[in-house]
Amino acid sequence: MHVSVVGLGNMGHAIAANLLKARFALTVWNRTPQRADNLVAAGAARAATPADAGRADIVITMLADDGAVEHVVFEEGVLESLPRNAIHVSMGTISVRLSERLTAAHAQRGSTFVAAPVFGRPDAAAAGRLFVIAAGRGDALDQCEPVFGAIGQRTFRVGEHPPHANVIKLAGNFLIASMIESLSEAVALARKSGIDARAFIDLLTNTLFAAPAYKTYGGLIAEERYRPAGFRMPLGLKDVTLALDAARDRTVPLPIASLVRDRMLEALANGYDDADWSALGAVAAKAAGLRRSSR
Amino acid sequence: MHVSVVGLGNMGHAIAANLLKARFALTVWNRTPQRADNLVAAGAARAATPADAGRADIVITMLADDGAVEHVVFEEGVLESLPRNAIHVSMGTISVRLSERLTAAHAQRGSTFVAAPVFGRPDAAAAGRLFVIAAGRGDALDQCEPVFGAIGQRTFRVGEHPPHANVIKLAGNFLIASMIESLSEAVALARKSGIDARAFIDLLTNTLFAAPAYKTYGGLIAEERYRPAGFRMPLGLKDVTLALDAARDRTVPLPIASLVRDRMLEALANGYDDADWSALGAVAAKAAGLRRSSR
Amino acid sequence: MHVSVVGLGNMGHAIAANLLKARFALTVWNRTPQRADNLVAAGAARAATPADAGRADIVITMLADDGAVEHVVFEEGVLESLPRNAIHVSMGTISVRLSERLTAAHAQRGSTFVAAPVFGRPDAAAAGRLFVIAAGRGDALDQCEPVFGAIGQRTFRVGEHPPHANVIKLAGNFLIASMIESLSEAVALARKSGIDARAFIDLLTNTLFAAPAYKTYGGLIAEERYRPAGFRMPLGLKDVTLALDAARDRTVPLPIASLVRDRMLEALANGYDDADWSALGAVAAKAAGLRRSSR
Amino acid sequence: MHVSVVGLGNMGHAIAANLLKARFALTVWNRTPQRADNLVAAGAARAATPADAGRADIVITMLADDGAVEHVVFEEGVLESLPRNAIHVSMGTISVRLSERLTAAHAQRGSTFVAAPVFGRPDAAAAGRLFVIAAGRGDALDQCEPVFGAIGQRTFRVGEHPPHANVIKLAGNFLIASMIESLSEAVALARKSGIDARAFIDLLTNTLFAAPAYKTYGGLIAEERYRPAGFRMPLGLKDVTLALDAARDRTVPLPIASLVRDRMLEALANGYDDADWSALGAVAAKAAGLRRSSR
Repeated sequence: MHVSVVGLGNMGHAIAANLLKARFALTVWNRTPQRADNLVAAGAARAATPADAGRADIVITMLADDGAVEHVVFEEGVLESLPRNAIHVSMGTISVRLSERLTAAHAQRGSTFVAAPVFGRPDAAAAGRLFVIAAGRGDALDQCEPVFGAIGQRTFRVGEHPPHANVIKLAGNFLIASMIESLSEAVALARKSGIDARAFIDLLTNTLFAAPAYKTYGGLIAEERYRPAGFRMPLGLKDVTLALDAARDRTVPLPIASLVRDRMLEALANGYDDADWSALGAVAAKAAGLRRSSR
Repeated sequence: MHVSVVGLGNMGHAIAANLLKARFALTVWNRTPQRADNLVAAGAARAATPADAGRADIVITMLADDGAVEHVVFEEGVLESLPRNAIHVSMGTISVRLSERLTAAHAQRGSTFVAAPVFGRPDAAAAGRLFVIAAGRGDALDQCEPVFGAIGQRTFRVGEHPPHANVIKLAGNFLIASMIESLSEAVALARKSGIDARAFIDLLTNTLFAAPAYKTYGGLIAEERYRPAGFRMPLGLKDVTLALDAARDRTVPLPIASLVRDRMLEALANGYDDADWSALGAVAAKAAGLRRSSR
Repeated sequence: MHVSVVGLGNMGHAIAANLLKARFALTVWNRTPQRADNLVAAGAARAATPADAGRADIVITMLADDGAVEHVVFEEGVLESLPRNAIHVSMGTISVRLSERLTAAHAQRGSTFVAAPVFGRPDAAAAGRLFVIAAGRGDALDQCEPVFGAIGQRTFRVGEHPPHANVIKLAGNFLIASMIESLSEAVALARKSGIDARAFIDLLTNTLFAAPAYKTYGGLIAEERYRPAGFRMPLGLKDVTLALDAARDRTVPLPIASLVRDRMLEALANGYDDADWSALGAVAAKAAGLRRSSR
Repeated sequence: MHVSVVGLGNMGHAIAANLLKARFALTVWNRTPQRADNLVAAGAARAATPADAGRADIVITMLADDGAVEHVVFEEGVLESLPRNAIHVSMGTISVRLSERLTAAHAQRGSTFVAAPVFGRPDAAAAGRLFVIAAGRGDALDQCEPVFGAIGQRTFRVGEHPPHANVIKLAGNFLIASMIESLSEAVALARKSGIDARAFIDLLTNTLFAAPAYKTYGGLIAEERYRPAGFRMPLGLKDVTLALDAARDRTVPLPIASLVRDRMLEALANGYDDADWSALGAVAAKAAGLRRSSR
């Protein structure tokens, strides 16, 4: 089975490497071609264009945003070059609307669209420990099974309608963002009460909230360690905005998402555009009149 | 060591039963005396009044709200009858202000105040599996150690200043409430997108949010199973309001808490006063125009 | 001077009629041609296409949304047919981004773009009593002066940069929407306190808030008279969303706008899509558990 | 008719002066007695204690907050010394709960309670141009009519139940606060778009919002002129909090009030405790990353 990966950022590169390791016939493409060098050295073919990459059984796109996906698919030839019965798997975080458009465009041409966004940070991608949220036609998902197996620890099939996977991904990121904001406020209250923030987070994550996400983000907020970014604030804003867009299209109010979006804008307007999205903690601290601790 | 328990609701009764099992000399008091009957049958002494209960080495209060605590302590004699060097341990969820007042009142009389609110629902209390968040003078906490050991799985000492324990308890309940609201919004989005709510929660709690609290509350919201209540909405509102009050006294804005408070008021105004606080899920569903599923 | 009006909804039709009355040489175009009949009977020329209408000294577009403007301007030929040195005046409520795009597109072709959104409802348009908020090159605004004079009671020049006029229009509509929401909440509080809503509004608008907008919207909310719509809820949502979009592009959080947007979504999800945007009053009343009064 | 005024702050002093001018037999009391000196010089009697002041036909209290009213009425003898059939008129902004308590306490003793809060700033009080919102028994309001006539431009009778007047006063102040916040956000958007804030406010207040409150507060925000304070931020917070408290007692969510309260807390936590409540404009500007303009 011939697989292509289009987009070799942190996530795409790790995915491609794992596919190579699993001995797939792999073609790769990236706008900045050097990103592909070590993969090519390890046995991958280099596509000259997205259209070249499109000549495969399965084409995976792992790109930064809707614009990038639209560009390679509709303007640079992925859609056109993809053989009938071949599969386009979008693994990045894209809008539900674009997922709907891709579903229709592929159906019209006789190819198949699968949405398979993932949960997991780059380290999980490198370790092949992603969670894959996959939606699409059953036979296509069957065909993708070995691919998903090579890059993730578990695949969740969430039905035949690709956009469902995107809704779930966006809802998941919204939940993380709202957890970050809530923790930020709680930590501000604790700190201004004279309670040690680190001890406070330790206590919470050993009692009520023994989940990795709470430990990770609670720790960053308690230590005000917002740089280097694991997931940059503008990407967080993008995802919360996509969740709000999908919700608007379905006439669903998401007041917490709206609130978080405003706090993210405040973060961006005040110098946190290069920081991790946990820098919502800095916004909450500032609102409470807390100075940055001296560490 | 002679211990009294004042207040035998679900939590207080379970705590008293565990102290009996651990062979403490136990005195109990409850405004409705019949609640004490089976404890007395099992060996506890029945206090005729709160003042009687106050004649002990350690008096635990586990009462519904500030008013109940103030009444037994300041008006019905617990403070006056408590011996010098004896300890008053407040385990209920009380305001930070009352905790400050109790700290001062006991200090003035030569007795000691310890705040030791707990995390855990009545079943955890019955199983002796509570988490105890304790703050107070070190020697007093040492003395309380066997008591805490009999009723909880772990004790967290959070310093010498009793109100700190109350801030942490309230912050924890605020975080649970904000998690419930976030999940409620996410589930509304999923349902209105045509995604099965139960499957959505299963996926989340097997990936990003593998924490018991997410499983418990996510499940209740997905199944719209808001009655019988594990923790009633008015109590949830009380605790979020206490968190907001403490935050106001420290000049800390908590916008998520404010938002959750308003949703809780909406729930109470629309017939959910006897429901679990997870009925925020019903408010979010209604806001999205979803009808109650037919189960 | 030859003037065209493209778009003959309530507002566009009234504007065209006033231009006729003021004896401008007038050409009109509307997608549903019958809307033009009485104007043609009164002396206007009927354009066969938007491109035909574009052959004028000043082309006014007064269309429902960005999509409609983009369609007639970029796809149906208004831009192309507009003579060099002629002026396109957009009077509808469009996005700031589209205004930027139109500014650039016209500049490139040697024509001029003027943004001139208006404040005022259809009755004010009919009476020639609109307020015109105009931005664009000074010489172009000079040329438009007689047109603005024929349709409005006063023109505000707000600079050379057309998008500024659109920001101001959107900010104005955001302020109206936030006033409606605030009044809705205040009326819910008054009603649930047993205070007559009508008397409450009368008092406010005779003391603190002696402004027509408060009288109009306060009256509608107090009387729960949400239909027929003066300005439909979906249009309100569109404008608040455009304000939020412009604010996001400038990294400005607008928490009140976010809140109002969510309440509008709740209104739309609960049957108020054909109601006036003052039906935010119904959302606030429902949140407070108030039943519709029996009138 | 013998009238007493208890509390000679800016408002109370102005009221007392107008009552003297209108030739009422006047007794005054203030905790800091020097505030009364010029009134005494002009013919007022000085009460030695609140109880002394209570021996009158009508006792007006104009005090800073609930605590001050409770103190003079319940602990310093105003209630006890007030003759049967005499009237206590509370003109300050007090809580609805205290108004209920005063209504009951006076009824029990055979005296009468009237709530008559006012709209208007100190300059309106000095000019006798206040608006009086009065509620209480009809005969008592009749008796107060000449007093109200001497201090205000118009009296609104809002029924027999005194707390209704307090609800209306608090709702009015909530509406002003929400207007300030909305204007603050709109001005931040305008400024960050490059639009002159002063011109923006002029335009709005000459079109949509030709109300004095918009002119006053819009001007302060546009000019960032937050000191000296006309109405201090902590008082604004107090009033919004009282509105939220009354709403909670009636199970009415007020999401805009909650949002404004949080922004006021942010203002207080960041150095605006001595500023006018229009300094919400500074909070919105900071959230948008705007620097204070150099004026």
